[in-house]
Amino acid sequence: MAKDMTLLWGSGSPPCWRVMIALEEKNLQGYNQKLLSFEKMEHKSQQVLDINARGQLPSFQHGDVIVNESYAACFYLESQFKSEGNKLIPDSPAEQALMYQRMFEGLSFYEKLNAVLYYDWYVPEGERHDSALKRNREALSAELKLWEGYLQKLGPTSHLAGTCFSLADVTVFPTVATLFRFGLPAERYPILAEYYALLKERPSIKASWPPHWLENPKGQDSLQDI
Amino acid sequence: MAKDMTLLWGSGSPPCWRVMIALEEKNLQGYNQKLLSFEKMEHKSQQVLDINARGQLPSFQHGDVIVNESYAACFYLESQFKSEGNKLIPDSPAEQALMYQRMFEGLSFYEKLNAVLYYDWYVPEGERHDSALKRNREALSAELKLWEGYLQKLGPTSHLAGTCFSLADVTVFPTVATLFRFGLPAERYPILAEYYALLKERPSIKASWPPHWLENPKGQDSLQDI
Repeated sequence: MAKDMTLLWGSGSPPCWRVMIALEEKNLQGYNQKLLSFEKMEHKSQQVLDINARGQLPSFQHGDVIVNESYAACFYLESQFKSEGNKLIPDSPAEQALMYQRMFEGLSFYEKLNAVLYYDWYVPEGERHDSALKRNREALSAELKLWEGYLQKLGPTSHLAGTCFSLADVTVFPTVATLFRFGLPAERYPILAEYYALLKERPSIKASWPPHWLENPKGQDSLQDI
Repeated sequence: MAKDMTLLWGSGSPPCWRVMIALEEKNLQGYNQKLLSFEKMEHKSQQVLDINARGQLPSFQHGDVIVNESYAACFYLESQFKSEGNKLIPDSPAEQALMYQRMFEGLSFYEKLNAVLYYDWYVPEGERHDSALKRNREALSAELKLWEGYLQKLGPTSHLAGTCFSLADVTVFPTVATLFRFGLPAERYPILAEYYALLKERPSIKASWPPHWLENPKGQDSLQDI
């Protein structure tokens, strides 16, 4: 069933990881895939540009259908393979609302993480300001407190939206994992750390763990003061 | 049915407008609503903060359910009121994929618009650089060419994803309308301009047109050189 699917992806990219988790959850193992290197600029290669004018990863194709945006691919897979694997959208209106809400807040979360981690990459040298980076770090810290609070309200859990693993976890977990990979102190965000510890053992997540993190399990410490 | 819904919104805000269009499309007129002023910082008022820790508009409540993120609210409304009003998610897998793809590309589109329109608002005085604003303008121009191309491929249309009005239009149209409000030259983006002209007559869109645009029909010209 997954033989007519192709995923072009990069290791450690949260958007790519989202799609890979969704594919695992829907039991769509065995899809064609090609690991590309951001460092070698392979996301701008012709193979990517042929199906993704933005030259971004993930790039995902199912038969003639192209769905490159990670959230779009997750929604598409859940919708097309509703009865395969795990159901990723809860039935209850309240849980569904919470799931959608957290998914889209998750985009701000991811953006604020990137604005700190990749500040030097996004901002050319002559335009960098310590004040801007400081503000970005404060925004990430405020964002983290929100999520710590959300999880606290739910009690110890491995689910962001109610009783089951859902698209909220599919889309937000890779951001959370990246935070800890880059040194976020678990003692300062204990509930987020617990969510991370619980979910990293989930089969879909283990199966799609970024290979270069496996090769080099020691992460970095750029977020240790957040 | 809409009596147990409350929308807090700001005039001319694309995220607010998305939710208002979705409510109209689902025949949920008659909801409680309160127009707040961004200028007076009413989005940071207690009434907003009570249901939206981010202090942002829209803030939307349906009974006990709170869904503030505009995309989340649109998905939630479509899911909870599937058989009311117009169906906003197509059935065909290909159209559905295209709808999701365009919806999420729509977030980049909106972000690139904001990075030009509100550059001075986002970036403190001492951190502004002509080179950054120039880059933002070039990114918006490249983005516009993508959308012009997407619409060209579909032929003259008022639908971004296939044969029917869908969540792609609900979420992206307010961005397109804002572009023309701020002076985007129709002659440079004729196909986008045609999409705009067709859709602005749609009842859900007319009914939710920003009141301060109605009061002052002449827009601005900040985007005339894009």
